[in-house]
Amino acid sequence: MLRVMERRNFPLASLRLLASARSAGKTLKFREKDVVIETLGMNSFEGIDVALFSAGSGISKEFAPVAVSSGAVVVDNSSAFRMSDSVPLVVPEINGADIRDHQGIIANPNCTTAITLMALHPLHKKFRVKRIFASSYQAVSGAGARALEELRKQVEALAKGAKFQPEVFPHQIAFNVIPQVDSFMETGYTKEEMKMQNEGRRIMHLPTFKASVTCVRVPIYRAHSVAVSAEFERPVGLVDAAEAIRQSPGVQIMTEGYPMPLQCAGQDDCVVGRLRLDCAMENGLAFWVCGDQLLKGAALNAIQIAELL
Amino acid sequence: MLRVMERRNFPLASLRLLASARSAGKTLKFREKDVVIETLGMNSFEGIDVALFSAGSGISKEFAPVAVSSGAVVVDNSSAFRMSDSVPLVVPEINGADIRDHQGIIANPNCTTAITLMALHPLHKKFRVKRIFASSYQAVSGAGARALEELRKQVEALAKGAKFQPEVFPHQIAFNVIPQVDSFMETGYTKEEMKMQNEGRRIMHLPTFKASVTCVRVPIYRAHSVAVSAEFERPVGLVDAAEAIRQSPGVQIMTEGYPMPLQCAGQDDCVVGRLRLDCAMENGLAFWVCGDQLLKGAALNAIQIAELL
Repeated sequence: MLRVMERRNFPLASLRLLASARSAGKTLKFREKDVVIETLGMNSFEGIDVALFSAGSGISKEFAPVAVSSGAVVVDNSSAFRMSDSVPLVVPEINGADIRDHQGIIANPNCTTAITLMALHPLHKKFRVKRIFASSYQAVSGAGARALEELRKQVEALAKGAKFQPEVFPHQIAFNVIPQVDSFMETGYTKEEMKMQNEGRRIMHLPTFKASVTCVRVPIYRAHSVAVSAEFERPVGLVDAAEAIRQSPGVQIMTEGYPMPLQCAGQDDCVVGRLRLDCAMENGLAFWVCGDQLLKGAALNAIQIAELL
Repeated sequence: MLRVMERRNFPLASLRLLASARSAGKTLKFREKDVVIETLGMNSFEGIDVALFSAGSGISKEFAPVAVSSGAVVVDNSSAFRMSDSVPLVVPEINGADIRDHQGIIANPNCTTAITLMALHPLHKKFRVKRIFASSYQAVSGAGARALEELRKQVEALAKGAKFQPEVFPHQIAFNVIPQVDSFMETGYTKEEMKMQNEGRRIMHLPTFKASVTCVRVPIYRAHSVAVSAEFERPVGLVDAAEAIRQSPGVQIMTEGYPMPLQCAGQDDCVVGRLRLDCAMENGLAFWVCGDQLLKGAALNAIQIAELL
């Protein structure tokens, strides 16, 4: 988020960095100056206009109300408030106007959902989406810095023939794929998988939207990809579909070649490719979308919300 | 195929190994004896009962008829004859009886198709499948030994900060995913993707079967995985679905945990997991299936056909 604010010249009078006591006293660079990290506490938010939260649901639930009562508006990266009726869930390019209704907290959506909707929403506006079937190819960095390190270390250990114990992921991730992101629900879907439908309904203002998703962790460092088959109410056309995406901000379309996570890492825009008429349904489109889940799926989207505020 | 024949005690009187002149004179071990490779030629098949082909479509098209005219029955691993009406396309557990109609050639199906059908066919018998939406997570070894080496070398080069040039795959595969397997058709699907529908129709005797697939290469060495949403004619139930798979030969079901490529590599049986009612359609089931594409997707299936012969 600091890098994104620097890059976008975020209009900032002062910056306060808050964390647990464990990190307090360390410094982070911002605009070439060292900023000392302070311990998060009940009085941390005095004088703060916008508070960006990215420390997990527990911390958000405890301290977002504290920030709000101090007069700050909270942009929350966790899943804590995403399904609260009183909290707008926002992808600025899609439902930026929802920000107006905030009551102190605005939620930043799930990364895979945000990236998929960047491709789906322009198509929805044109053809009215009914449902999607999707499978994800999610990078390890979606599970945090320790997960990134875990992949690196497993690859290193395997090269040396050394032993290792998975810690962040439930199984070896190097040279493997794990069809589980987040925990399982009684239905057999994971929480991560149902976010597409639940959050998609709120962001697109489409309570009938259905999404059957399989979320899979793959051994890559950064940027998520999603393969989607989408069914629409209206007849679809490839030229119109491509044009709808092309005219939409924050998303690009490739008609020659296709996007891959390696290229999309570090890039603000999501990229759609492999757009085609779905061969297994009427009014269907299949496509592939890649996006940097640390940017559009997290930091960039949060800063875009702060900019709108 | 040699390892599979050894392991299954294939009833073999003698073995002849045929290859291009480049490999002639080299030896391969079979049942602890060295067998010298001979150059493939017009007279190679005299006295041969069963000829196993695995050298690409070009060689199959040229030499399968030669083998047949010498009196051999050909089991062909390439895609050369898979869509020929006069050539049975066989997964023994599904349509082994089709072998009876052969006119000298029997085709071995595409690996991703075979693995998916091992899970889908038992469900089809119970509930009558209409269509599927599927995404694959395909190991590099599906593209051959050189592809395996390419992933290994790219990982090594990246660790050293050395440069490299992709040769087998069109892009870097290490720490990347590539949404292309085989070449593109005018529809925007790849040939690999359409094999699921085209070969699935023939193997399941179901000319109305539809399959919208995205095939993706992932940086793992061995075993393919497929995420599937399947729609059926009849109402589905989870208990019946799991039981149908459990009672089917060559495929296992995991109801605790889930299969992953790392575990399925080197294993004959395909393994289904994450079986759940599909949340985006009526009479729908979603599942995840893994299988060793060098075994059930290739060598094992070919040897099983030879055993039936």
